[in-house]
Amino acid sequence: MAVRIFITGGTFDKEYNEITGQLFFKDTHMHDLLEMGRCRVQVEIRTLMMIDSLEMTDEDRDLIVHQCIQCEENKIVITHGTDTMSETAKVIAQKMTGKTVVLTGAMIPIKFGSSDGLFNLGSALAFAQSLPHGVYVAMNGRFFHWDNVSKNKQTGMFEEVK
Amino acid sequence: MAVRIFITGGTFDKEYNEITGQLFFKDTHMHDLLEMGRCRVQVEIRTLMMIDSLEMTDEDRDLIVHQCIQCEENKIVITHGTDTMSETAKVIAQKMTGKTVVLTGAMIPIKFGSSDGLFNLGSALAFAQSLPHGVYVAMNGRFFHWDNVSKNKQTGMFEEVK
Amino acid sequence: MAVRIFITGGTFDKEYNEITGQLFFKDTHMHDLLEMGRCRVQVEIRTLMMIDSLEMTDEDRDLIVHQCIQCEENKIVITHGTDTMSETAKVIAQKMTGKTVVLTGAMIPIKFGSSDGLFNLGSALAFAQSLPHGVYVAMNGRFFHWDNVSKNKQTGMFEEVK
Amino acid sequence: MAVRIFITGGTFDKEYNEITGQLFFKDTHMHDLLEMGRCRVQVEIRTLMMIDSLEMTDEDRDLIVHQCIQCEENKIVITHGTDTMSETAKVIAQKMTGKTVVLTGAMIPIKFGSSDGLFNLGSALAFAQSLPHGVYVAMNGRFFHWDNVSKNKQTGMFEEVK
Repeated sequence: MAVRIFITGGTFDKEYNEITGQLFFKDTHMHDLLEMGRCRVQVEIRTLMMIDSLEMTDEDRDLIVHQCIQCEENKIVITHGTDTMSETAKVIAQKMTGKTVVLTGAMIPIKFGSSDGLFNLGSALAFAQSLPHGVYVAMNGRFFHWDNVSKNKQTGMFEEVK
Repeated sequence: MAVRIFITGGTFDKEYNEITGQLFFKDTHMHDLLEMGRCRVQVEIRTLMMIDSLEMTDEDRDLIVHQCIQCEENKIVITHGTDTMSETAKVIAQKMTGKTVVLTGAMIPIKFGSSDGLFNLGSALAFAQSLPHGVYVAMNGRFFHWDNVSKNKQTGMFEEVK
Repeated sequence: MAVRIFITGGTFDKEYNEITGQLFFKDTHMHDLLEMGRCRVQVEIRTLMMIDSLEMTDEDRDLIVHQCIQCEENKIVITHGTDTMSETAKVIAQKMTGKTVVLTGAMIPIKFGSSDGLFNLGSALAFAQSLPHGVYVAMNGRFFHWDNVSKNKQTGMFEEVK
Repeated sequence: MAVRIFITGGTFDKEYNEITGQLFFKDTHMHDLLEMGRCRVQVEIRTLMMIDSLEMTDEDRDLIVHQCIQCEENKIVITHGTDTMSETAKVIAQKMTGKTVVLTGAMIPIKFGSSDGLFNLGSALAFAQSLPHGVYVAMNGRFFHWDNVSKNKQTGMFEEVK
């Protein structure tokens, strides 16, 4: 069965505006990454929003949960900004069961060339296919349960809380 | 517990000789990839050989099996040329049990920039951490059991046999 | 005779801080670019400052002029932020004669992979070796005389004024 | 006035066939490079052939000379394999005068990411705009007169003969 991929934005999909020197969102780079990875997993891709996760509202999270519940697939990958990834994981876990949901993202925009995005996407798709039902964060090659993960703001790495 | 990574060569680690126009092996690019992926999985890396998998002998495969059995870790990732990856998987499966072994590689050398290697490594490390004991091939974002996989020589993609 | 290269910063040498999402300066990427270009021009490299050109002061420009006058070489390339590149060119031209000085930079940081920096450096080194004495801006594959150039802030391209 | 760009192939434009592991030609990467360099030089591009320069015949060289003579522009850049670049330069110089012709190429295919091609193109376009009439090779950031250049087959670098 297919894996559902939901796009929400985050550093993963940021672009560099060479006129202003600012980062901004245009289109997702998901298709380029799947092509570069010669990915043959059957996927259904849908962009839900294109925002910095620091600006994600309760309404935005409700939309994500709603989409996770509604979609036919029971294996879901969500690309998400790293700053509030664990918060969104928590909200999904509290409102949905019976599916494997894996949130992932990147510390370096994919467009910058030396991004961790391709590595993270590879691991997230793998975890989505192999982990039991539940909500997880996949970063730094590891997976974390939604109730035991936070981003270390000093190092940028994800860690267990307990 | 740590994941053991064994390097055996393959397109994954090939370099381009700009004088002769030939591909050749020097050092593995594993450390660069793990750094690019901001990988925080505890890994133990050992290079067993640096060869094109078309030139892999029975003795070479015995060495790989021996190393898989001897190492302390029970989660193992092996980078390997794609041409005979499924053969090596078979040999390992026939001689060893009780560990999760994931073979992976690349269609494009990592040094070429647009390689599938980083994606494959991300998924291989994830599968090694999450799949039950057994021997698998991880390519194209998917995992295959050792007794049900072959490389399609026309497309370069891995497929189920049955 | 050698070409002198002076580094002053600018987008050319900016890095991306993956923790804060901000751009910052660390070391110059000049050596990496010269190596990538297999450059065999004899060069003498000196970093004068590492700043955004919007923050460049009169004193900073005096330092650049002083270095241009003092150095032994009479072919000089200066990497510089694009925003005030033409201002610095004007100051140099008004205070120094008898050398070929070429200012260049980048719209995209070199570290981002798809930068124009390598192209600009190639053209700047070429112009420094082949143009008569004078002060020039080399951007977009073209060269401009110091008294007839400005950056179009809408397009990011350099244009003749007259 | 515009610069004429003639494409003849060479390592510059080679692609990697991931099924066979062989290098081959498809389309030129000239447009991608000009875009990456934010090039605003007015150019007219024409592909004359797509071959390894070791396979270039006298007839091929006659075609190149003919095109150099016929085209309206008097500033010409030719991308060419490095192995016989100096031979072609010689043939052009012996049959044509009154234009600035600059041959360039790459040691690493552009598609491999860490290519010298963008640097070489930047310098070739600059030399074509600034050098007096004559036939030149532009490699390694330098320019060479057609009658004083050869490729060092040990180092891959271009050198003066005399």
